[in-house]
Formats: sequence, C-alpha cells, structure tokens
Amino acid sequence: MKPLNIGMVGYGLMGRAHTNAFRQANQFFSLGHRPVLKAVCGRDGKKAKAFAKNWGYESVETDWKALVARPDIDLIDIAATNNVHAEIALAAAKAGKMVLCEKPLGMSPSESLKMVNAVEKAGVANMVWYNYRRAPAVTMAKQLIEEGKLGKIFHYRAKFLQDWTISADVPQGGAGTWRLDASVSGSGVTGDLLAHCIDTAMWLNGGIESVTGMTETFVKKRKNALTGKKQEVLIDDASAFLARFNNGSLATFEATRYARGHKALYTFEVNGEHASLAWDLHDLHRLEWFDHRDEGNVRGWRSIHLSESEHPYIEHWWIPGVQIGFEHTFTHQVADFIAGLDSGEPARPNFRDGLATDYVTDAVLKSAKTGRWTKVKQA
Amino acid sequence: MKPLNIGMVGYGLMGRAHTNAFRQANQFFSLGHRPVLKAVCGRDGKKAKAFAKNWGYESVETDWKALVARPDIDLIDIAATNNVHAEIALAAAKAGKMVLCEKPLGMSPSESLKMVNAVEKAGVANMVWYNYRRAPAVTMAKQLIEEGKLGKIFHYRAKFLQDWTISADVPQGGAGTWRLDASVSGSGVTGDLLAHCIDTAMWLNGGIESVTGMTETFVKKRKNALTGKKQEVLIDDASAFLARFNNGSLATFEATRYARGHKALYTFEVNGEHASLAWDLHDLHRLEWFDHRDEGNVRGWRSIHLSESEHPYIEHWWIPGVQIGFEHTFTHQVADFIAGLDSGEPARPNFRDGLATDYVTDAVLKSAKTGRWTKVKQA
Amino acid sequence: MKPLNIGMVGYGLMGRAHTNAFRQANQFFSLGHRPVLKAVCGRDGKKAKAFAKNWGYESVETDWKALVARPDIDLIDIAATNNVHAEIALAAAKAGKMVLCEKPLGMSPSESLKMVNAVEKAGVANMVWYNYRRAPAVTMAKQLIEEGKLGKIFHYRAKFLQDWTISADVPQGGAGTWRLDASVSGSGVTGDLLAHCIDTAMWLNGGIESVTGMTETFVKKRKNALTGKKQEVLIDDASAFLARFNNGSLATFEATRYARGHKALYTFEVNGEHASLAWDLHDLHRLEWFDHRDEGNVRGWRSIHLSESEHPYIEHWWIPGVQIGFEHTFTHQVADFIAGLDSGEPARPNFRDGLATDYVTDAVLKSAKTGRWTKVKQA
Amino acid sequence: MKPLNIGMVGYGLMGRAHTNAFRQANQFFSLGHRPVLKAVCGRDGKKAKAFAKNWGYESVETDWKALVARPDIDLIDIAATNNVHAEIALAAAKAGKMVLCEKPLGMSPSESLKMVNAVEKAGVANMVWYNYRRAPAVTMAKQLIEEGKLGKIFHYRAKFLQDWTISADVPQGGAGTWRLDASVSGSGVTGDLLAHCIDTAMWLNGGIESVTGMTETFVKKRKNALTGKKQEVLIDDASAFLARFNNGSLATFEATRYARGHKALYTFEVNGEHASLAWDLHDLHRLEWFDHRDEGNVRGWRSIHLSESEHPYIEHWWIPGVQIGFEHTFTHQVADFIAGLDSGEPARPNFRDGLATDYVTDAVLKSAKTGRWTKVKQA
Repeated sequence: MKPLNIGMVGYGLMGRAHTNAFRQANQFFSLGHRPVLKAVCGRDGKKAKAFAKNWGYESVETDWKALVARPDIDLIDIAATNNVHAEIALAAAKAGKMVLCEKPLGMSPSESLKMVNAVEKAGVANMVWYNYRRAPAVTMAKQLIEEGKLGKIFHYRAKFLQDWTISADVPQGGAGTWRLDASVSGSGVTGDLLAHCIDTAMWLNGGIESVTGMTETFVKKRKNALTGKKQEVLIDDASAFLARFNNGSLATFEATRYARGHKALYTFEVNGEHASLAWDLHDLHRLEWFDHRDEGNVRGWRSIHLSESEHPYIEHWWIPGVQIGFEHTFTHQVADFIAGLDSGEPARPNFRDGLATDYVTDAVLKSAKTGRWTKVKQA
Repeated sequence: MKPLNIGMVGYGLMGRAHTNAFRQANQFFSLGHRPVLKAVCGRDGKKAKAFAKNWGYESVETDWKALVARPDIDLIDIAATNNVHAEIALAAAKAGKMVLCEKPLGMSPSESLKMVNAVEKAGVANMVWYNYRRAPAVTMAKQLIEEGKLGKIFHYRAKFLQDWTISADVPQGGAGTWRLDASVSGSGVTGDLLAHCIDTAMWLNGGIESVTGMTETFVKKRKNALTGKKQEVLIDDASAFLARFNNGSLATFEATRYARGHKALYTFEVNGEHASLAWDLHDLHRLEWFDHRDEGNVRGWRSIHLSESEHPYIEHWWIPGVQIGFEHTFTHQVADFIAGLDSGEPARPNFRDGLATDYVTDAVLKSAKTGRWTKVKQA
Repeated sequence: MKPLNIGMVGYGLMGRAHTNAFRQANQFFSLGHRPVLKAVCGRDGKKAKAFAKNWGYESVETDWKALVARPDIDLIDIAATNNVHAEIALAAAKAGKMVLCEKPLGMSPSESLKMVNAVEKAGVANMVWYNYRRAPAVTMAKQLIEEGKLGKIFHYRAKFLQDWTISADVPQGGAGTWRLDASVSGSGVTGDLLAHCIDTAMWLNGGIESVTGMTETFVKKRKNALTGKKQEVLIDDASAFLARFNNGSLATFEATRYARGHKALYTFEVNGEHASLAWDLHDLHRLEWFDHRDEGNVRGWRSIHLSESEHPYIEHWWIPGVQIGFEHTFTHQVADFIAGLDSGEPARPNFRDGLATDYVTDAVLKSAKTGRWTKVKQA
Repeated sequence: MKPLNIGMVGYGLMGRAHTNAFRQANQFFSLGHRPVLKAVCGRDGKKAKAFAKNWGYESVETDWKALVARPDIDLIDIAATNNVHAEIALAAAKAGKMVLCEKPLGMSPSESLKMVNAVEKAGVANMVWYNYRRAPAVTMAKQLIEEGKLGKIFHYRAKFLQDWTISADVPQGGAGTWRLDASVSGSGVTGDLLAHCIDTAMWLNGGIESVTGMTETFVKKRKNALTGKKQEVLIDDASAFLARFNNGSLATFEATRYARGHKALYTFEVNGEHASLAWDLHDLHRLEWFDHRDEGNVRGWRSIHLSESEHPYIEHWWIPGVQIGFEHTFTHQVADFIAGLDSGEPARPNFRDGLATDYVTDAVLKSAKTGRWTKVKQA
C-alpha cells in the first residue's frame, strides 16, 4: 500500500468533510494508496493546530505557499474559500502536486480555464469536489441512464432550496457567512447551489446548449461581519433558469436560500421515453423510479431504498435496510480518486468538468442581466 | 331498465352514504336495474321528511314495519343502529324483500345466524355494507392475490385507528355517540372497526382459525347523552388480537379510538413469498406494491395511483391522474349488487359472510375475557 | 328554491363533470337555486340523446343557436372545444343568459376580451371552469395566504406533468385528441395545463408582471384522426417559463405531456417568510404545510389530511379521515356559483379572470418565439 | 485525554460497527477518554489479522481468555455470537474489565442474571449494544415523552420486518447464518429483532407487565452450513405479541424474516393524549410527529428531518439538511459511554437493562408455548 500524502488547505466544513473521507476510505474500500494526513494549512495557527490534533494531521502550516513547497506532500486539497482556489491550484500544479479543489472551480470561467490549463500542462491528477455524483442513488441514476433504461430523454428538472438567509439580520462576510460576500464567493446561489445541480445534470444528461436565467437579491443590504458596516449585497439570493440540452431535452433549474422549510433540498428528476427517475438529498438513500414497461395495473413510482449489495458502493458498507449518510459522498469520491490513481483511469469530475459547469453558471448570470437566451461555451 | 324500489331505514351518515350511491350508480355503470328512492323511514318524522326532500325520496315512513309492509318496495336497506338490524332484517326477509344491512350484521353471532337463516330461507338477495372491499385499491389487492402474484402468504396485518373519543367529555348514547353505548352498538371498536378489517382480511386471505385478544376501556364512565347521567362505559375503546389463518399465515389486528393523529387510518399489509402489498384508507386511491421478481437494483415499493382504466372500477370514472373519493366504495357496492341481480350471480359480502366476521369478533371478545386462544367458528 | 335552468353545450369529459356537479350540489350544500337539467346540445344527436338519458336532461338540441334561443334556459354552460367558446358565449350573453365556460376562455386574448366585454355589457353572471381553485386544499392555501400566515412571499413554483402523448402513434384531432390539433385547441400544454397553474397562481399570489418562456414540440408530425393524413403538429408539447409577480416574488412554471410516470401531476409550492405550503393533484386531499414559527426541534413539513370540518367545504361531506374526489372541485364551483347568485356577490373566476390568465399564456407563447422577457398585459 | 484500551472479541458485522465507532467518536465529540484499539480476538487468526490491519488494532489474540488476561486492556467488547456472551462477560468482569456486550445479553434470563450479578459485583462499567436508542430521532422521541409532550400514553406499537430467510435454501449455522441455529443464537427473531423493539419500548414507555405471544417457524428444516446435514430449525422465524405496560398502555409487537419487501423495517409508534410520534429505521433521520395542540385546520403529521443543531447529537455532525447514517447509532453509544466514564453517571442500557429485555423475550416465548398471558419478571 503506497502512502498518499495529503496537504489540506482549510479547516472549515469542507476541510472537515474531506479529512473525514481521507481517514475512512481505506477501511471500507480496497485501495492501492492510503492517504496520510501530513499537514493542514490555515491562517489562524491556533485553530489549525486544534484541527490537526482532532483529526490526526502530523503538522500545521499557516501559509499555503509553504505547504505547496513541501516535498513530503503529494496532493494539495483546496478546501478554502472560492477566492483563493485559483492561485493555490496554479501553484500546486506548478509544484507537480495532485490537486483537489472544492467547487466551484474558480471565481469566473477565465480563472477556471487557467486552472484547467495548469493541471493539464503539469499532467497532475485533479478533481473537483462535486460530491453528490457519488451518493449511491445518484450514481445509480447514471447507470440506469447509461444502460438506456430511460430511452430518449425529454425533461430534466433540478432545484436546490435552502432557507438560511431569509432574516435580514444574517450578516455577510467572515467565517460563517462568506458565501454572502461576492468578493469571496464569486456569486451567490448560482455558484454555490446551482453548480451542484449543473454538474450532476451534465453528468447524467450531457452538455447544456443554451440558457435563460433570472436572479434576485431579496435583501439588498447586510452588515459585513468583519467590518460591522452595512454594505450592498452583491450576490444572488435566488437564481432560476430554463435550459436546452445538446440532446434536445428541456430543463428547469432553480436555487434559492429563501425557500422556507427546506435546508438543503437538492432534487432532480429525469423523464425519459420509457422511464423516469427522481432523487432528493433530504432522503439521499432513496431513488424514485418509474418504469412504463411494468405491467399496466401495477405501474407506479418505486421508492428504492439503496442499502443492498446490488446498489453502487453499498457492498462496502453495512447491512440491507440501513442507510449511510451524507459524509460518504466524500468517502466515495476519495475511494474513486485513489482507484483512479491505481488504475490509471482518472476519476472525474476533473478540472475540465468543473470548467464546463462554470461556463453554464456564467451564462446563467449573463442571461439574467441581458434578459436573453445565452449560448453556453463548451469546455 | 327495471326499477329497483328502495325502502331506506335510517337517515344518518350511512343512510346518506347509501342514498348517494343509489342515486349515482346508474350514471356511471351500465346496469339492468335503476334504484328508485321510494321511501325513507325514521322515527323522527320531521327529520325524515327533510332528508327525503333533500335526497329525492318519494315518501316517508316513521315505522319500519309500515315500510316493510309496503308492496311497492323491493329492497329494504337497513342503515339504522346495530340494535335493530336483526328484527328489521327478519321481517323484511319474511316479507320477501331483498335486504341490505349495515355492518356489523347482528349484535351477536346468534342474532346474525338468525338473519342468515331468514334471508337464505326466503331466498332473497342480501348483502352487508362492508364497503371497503370496493375501494379500487382493495379490489385490486384481491385480484393480485387471486392471480397468485404474492405466492404463499406468510403475514397479514391490519389496524383501524381513530382518535375521536380521547376526551372524557365525549358522551355515550344518542345520535352522534350511540357507538359508545353498548346496548345500541353491541361492542366498541371490535364490532365497529375491527369488523371492517376482518371482512377484508378473510376476503383476501381466507378464514381465520383462532385468535387471542386484548381489549381496554380507557375512560370508565361517560355521561349518557340522552339521560344526562354518568354511566359505566361497557364498550371496548381499544382492541387488538393475534390470529392464525386457515392457510397458516399469521396476523396482527388492532383498532382503537385513542390513537392521536389518526381519523380513520384503516391500513392493511399482506406479505407473500414473492410480493407484498399495503393499503391505507387515508390515501385510498393508492396501493403500495413490492414485487421481489423485479430486477434486483431497481426493486422498491411502488406507489400505484389507481386512476387508470387498467384499475378496478376506474374506467367508469374520470381521467388518469385524478382520484375518486370514499363515497364511491358505496357506489361500487350498489353497482355490483345490481349487476348481481342482473346476472344471477349475487354480489358479496352476503349475510353469511357477515356472520363469518361476527364469529371472529365474538371470538376476539371472548378471548379478551378468558386470556386464552379461542377457535373461531366457521360460518 | 328557485330553479336554475341549465343548457349544456357538449357531452364530453367536461360535459359529464359539469353535469355531475349540477346534479349533486344541492344534496350537499344549502342553496337558493336548484339546477334543472333542461337541455344538452351536441352535434351528434344520437350521442346527445344517450347522454341526456343517462344524466336526466329533459331535452336535446343539435344546434347551439337553438339552445341559446330557448326562453326556458337561464344558463348556457360551454363545455365544447376551445374553438367555439367565443361565438357561443357572445350569443349567449347577447341573449341575456348566464354563461359558464370551460377553460381557457378564448383561443386568443382578443377573443377572450370580446367575451369579457359581452358578458359585462349584458350584465350576466359568468364564470370560467378553473375548477382546481376549489379543491379544499387549494382553497385552504388561499385562506392561509390571505390570513398572512406566510408573510412576504418569495417563491412560487408550479408544474403540470402528463405523459399521454409520448408515443408518436397518438393522433391529433377528433374526439379524444382534439387537444393536439391547434386549430381546435388554440395551443398545447400552455393553454391546456399551464392555464390551470396560472389561474391558481394569480389567485394565490396576485398578478404576474413578466415572463420568459420556452416551448417544444417533440413529435413533429402526427396523423389527423379525422382525415387520416399525417400533418405537422402545431401545438406545444411542453412549455416552461420563468416569471416575476407584481409582488416581487419569483416563479417557475412547467407543463408537459412527456413526463413519463405522471398522469396529471399538477403541483404548486409557495415559499413565504414565515411558512410554506405545497399541493399535489395526485393526492388532492392533502396540503403540505411548514411553519417556521413551530418550536425548533419539532419543525417539519405537516401533511394535512383535509377531511375535517375545519377544512374548506368538508363539513358538507362525510366523516373525518375519508377523502373526496376530483369531481367535487366542480361540485364546489357550482355551489359557489349559486351562492353568488343568491347573495349577489358573484363567484369567481369570472371571464375577466379568465382573460388575465390568457394574457399570461399569450405572453409565454410570444416570449418562447422571441427569446425575450415579455411584459404581461393586465386584465 | 486518557486512553481507553479496547479488547474486541469478534470481527463480524458488529465487530466492524463497534470498531468504526471507537475510531470516530473522538473526532466528533469532546471526550475525556480516547479509545485505543489494543487487540482484536478471533478464533481464525488469519482473518483476525486482516481485520486488525484494516482497522488499526495493535495486536491479535485467538483465545479470548488470553485477551481477558491482558493487563493492558481496560475494556472487553463482546461482539461474538450469543452463545459465548456469558462466559466471556463473567471472566472479563472477574478480571475487573469494563464490559460491553452485543445484544441480547445472554442465551436465557438465567445466563443474563449471572452476567448482571458479575458486573455489579465487580463494579465495572457495563453496557449492552442496543444501538437504536441513539438514532437521533429515537433519542428525541425519548425527550419529547419525558417532557410530557404526549401526555398519558395509550398505545405503543412496534415491528421489525425482514425478508432474508424466505427461501428454504438459506442454510442455518456458520458465519453468515448462525442466527438461524438455535444453539448459537438462543432464539430467532424474538431475541434478534424483538429484543431491539422491547429495549426501545421500555426506555420510552416504562416496564411491560404481561404479554401473550405467537411464534412460527415457516421453514421446518434447513441444511446446516457447517455439517451439510438437513436439520430441524429450532428458532422462531416470526414472533408477535400483545402486551400491557405497567402504565396501562397497550401494545402490539411483531418481528419476522418473512415480510417480503422489508430489509430492516424497524418501526414504532406511540400514541398519547396530546400527541403521537412514529419512527422508521428505513428513514432513520426522520421522526413523524403529530401534535393535537396545533391549530385545528393546519394539524397534520410533521415529518421532522433531524439534521439541525436543535436535534440530539446533530450539532456534532454536518450541516442542516443532510443526514447521518446507521453507523452513528454506535458512534453515539461510544460517545455516551465515554461521557459516562468521564462524568461518573454511567450510560445505559446497562446489563440490568439488558436483563429486563431478556425477561420480556423469555415471557413471549413461554407464552407462545402455553397460549396464555404471561407476567413479565421485572429486572
């Protein structure tokens, strides 16, 4: 078993989720490399140390450049805020490190393109953390579509609904609310939530040809958590778009943080000629499935409980009837990434896939400004 | 089209439900007889008149004996309280009338047996209003079982949960609460609710061989609504039993009026070797179906929306996707009763079927007293 | 009780649904007028006679002009195909008859506007059969919004999904498939299905300010059921749009007949500051409700089973726990229409409301052609 | 942070689940002890070594007596088959080790009583792995009941349904199927599945006073996986019982491995005067909650998605809207066990609680033989 020496940038929610996955993948999957938690990097050294102690990192850095420079690191995992993805990734690639990056890839397609060029030129393994592809139910959706079980696809619809910013008292900026500060996040729900929906959608149903979008910022000014000053909110609170896929199917997409009652309601549905399927993150261990080829009187939507060895990833876990949780979308991604290293067939989504998603979110935001249908650049 | 002259006894909830069914069956079903609302009978002449006017009865009687004596009546429908079922049915049969009777058939198996003997001796058409057999989903359950789709049956479980008598202030006796007065109702939930569960169960899964039961009366004294006096409550508030069917399958049954949050939650589930099915009165237009013969990875419980022409009774109604309501369990029963007259193959459940159910409820009540397993008499 | 003499034009699905409602409203609601089924009018006299016999119409007409001319008719109910709504309504209004009209009102807003002007000038009672307003759950949604329980509304989303035209073998034109023939239907799913969604949406959430839409015709040619010739399909098979309401809330709408597994899945959801609600025609007796003001740890979406006397219309029906069906959306509309006659406060949606919906569908179709956001004319 | 040196007996499913919990508790919970994986013990040294390597155990033993004798072990965790629980526990207690034991505690109440006496005499920390108490939804059920939110409790119903032994070809005995061999398992579903239901039930609703049960063995003979011989099956395939709790509430319990379509459908429902709650292991992250004190028209069953910091254990995990899995019922039990060591208030269920459950299962099995109600011995 070869070591895979990890240098983690960031110790927030995603730093935690990735680290947990690095710690667990090898107990459940038979892999040729074993992640070694070499170092975590964070600007606040005290917090970084506490994180390292809790999770078992061997060392701490407070400057990502120092981390990237370390010869004992094989892989840089960027779990920091969006505004630093690009510079870290470029440096890491240049240093010949493998690079994993939280989504969305860059602050703009042009940033993302540079990142793609950097990793491709350096020839280093690279991946974006669009983790929902690896919820077993989503992976099975992919399998069913690839097997042709749905036939020609007519419709795709996805939404990602939250409700945590309804109060005008939620600030922008700082540790817990940087996603509301456009200078750190790039955009609002378009890059944060719709990006997930788009990555899954293109994986399942191919490229998107054109979009027309609409965005809104319901709360116009919020206090900055760092400065205490009330400032204009520059992110999109809500975003929706219509789309046409390259294969001729139609789609609706929507994301918001103003949908009372929903915490992380990422749902999608695909309607094909013969069959349809639907998924919902709030019950991520289920896939809804309708097959028109079933006998007429007993046709109905099946609620498939993904807890059996026939289901993707599940043979590695527990027993029929019991579910695994959100965190293992990351565990699976680590397992697949390492399996890609082992086999030489890299796992995806890679940076180029991340760029493809960024082209769509960019077209959505542009279209929301011009009020016109916008062609999506193909990555 | 031949007339079928109806004489209705009772104008309460069930009088209303039956009458509505008599009025509607012929618009939706092609039948050889058409019900004619000749007379309704009730002790309170004023209320009976109002009822007759609202529903279109041609005349009113205040004495059921007068109704039974009328030569222009073909069919006596007994929608009165349980304590008068037997005497009216006996007289009606003797007078050569067809007899329909609300459930349960009699106050005791011995009463019920007399009623069976009376109609069989008279050779008159007879039926008990166990209406739930004719919810399309329940009828389809019967079809699936008869087609052998479930294979050998291992388990049956049913419950009927309500919550309307939790308050100790609910009185007993009188128009709205006669079901709490044992002298009028015979028993509590055993005869009122479990009887429904048992009728369906034996229809779907054959005879019940033996039972062991438990009953409870949570509120020991209630005011009598007629006398104003506080009296001991003699009905069972809750009743549950274990059973063995003749075919070797096991069952649990439960009914109560103390299950907070449930209004009329009649549910059953049948588990067979190959497939299982489940139904719930609160969503009566759906049948849940699991077929182990489905391909492994896409096995799941199907929620069948019974609104298509492949489903029992549905071709007579509206359009795919829209549901019919509770009242049409009665409409279907009328339609099938008339179809039975037309064809000479009488519809069921007939009085003998009603007796079979009464034998089970009687065994449950006896067993609850003795604490022992009790053999069920076969009707 | 005053008679309300009905002249029905059409004996298809909607003729049947309206007639059933006219026959039933008075048994369940206390009203000052009682509908009298005077005449049904259809071009095929034989079929019209059969229909009249089945439903109890006193007479038959084969020319709607004759019907309109009859002095014994108070109300003309237009349940014929869309292409004849306008001329019949204009004539009926001119003859001083009350006019009820199936939706959508006209083939185009200009037709609809003429119809509005005609009934308003004649001062006759008028209503459009947007029946879903009167599903009890939808009516309760209206009440909850009007009581301010949701607070400021941020989002509205609706869809109406069917799957009956996926096969390219489904013809266009003729009795069962006139909805696919643009010369008879006006449009495809936009006028047929989205119109329902829009009527409800504006009733619940006020006027729509602007839209951007997308339509598609998946099957380009279909055989004409009348001529047998293969012809271009001119209706929209699928239609989706983004919208902004006058109150600042955002919306997504979608309708299609290519969503495998859905028969008539009309759903809507409204997200407000304090609470959200959602409805689904496939389980029309339920309303989903989330109230953020509930205590933190027990917050959750409530599935309200509308079967109790606290719920709109329900006190007129059966018992707690049992549901009513689709047909009673029409029964309630008749009851409310008559109550409006009785009280002098006309029930709605009236023709002007119908026009408002037609302005939206028109803007959607125009926008789908131009690819631009389109202002909606206000009725 | 003090070490807590673990000696694990067994490396099957439960050995894996416990080990995973020992490895994870400290990353998510702030605790005064940290488990150290000192040794795993299994009769097959090769398998034990592989297990140790995968999970990070420092050493391996093949004789549990050697393990118990090791001075560097603080805690013996018995994850072996039921037939060896007692002797190991007795020895471990005698050696002054803390003892954790898989459920059910012993093969019989007399064995269990000895185990209780041993740990109590030795004064060592002890716990039984009834892990479902610590699904967050189940813990919240406990809180709601303790806060009096339900009021007087009338009904409890639980079932645990599986379908994995329907085929007569499933063998008995050996690694995967020892649960079918009575000499190893003690009983069938009564000890395996009902024991879980009973532990939860008594935790939530207090002691059980008396029961009447029914058991069945559907497949009478199965091949022994070790000997290859066909032998009589001595376990119960299905088991159901009625019960009366000490508090006067009534209950139904059922477990089976013959319920087609259910993998591990452990469900319970509690009906109180004011409120009811229900849970289902197949969606373990949800609790269903009905509160009659809600305003009349918006009363409904709430589906609470346990993913927020107000919910038990959840503040230690991820973000609102995403669920944790089955394995963390064990993680929570480890965290609580250690917190009990830290605070001096031992976590439960302890061995005496396990004995209480064994008294109930024993009464059920006896009652199934005698056909009579049986008093339950109180632990």
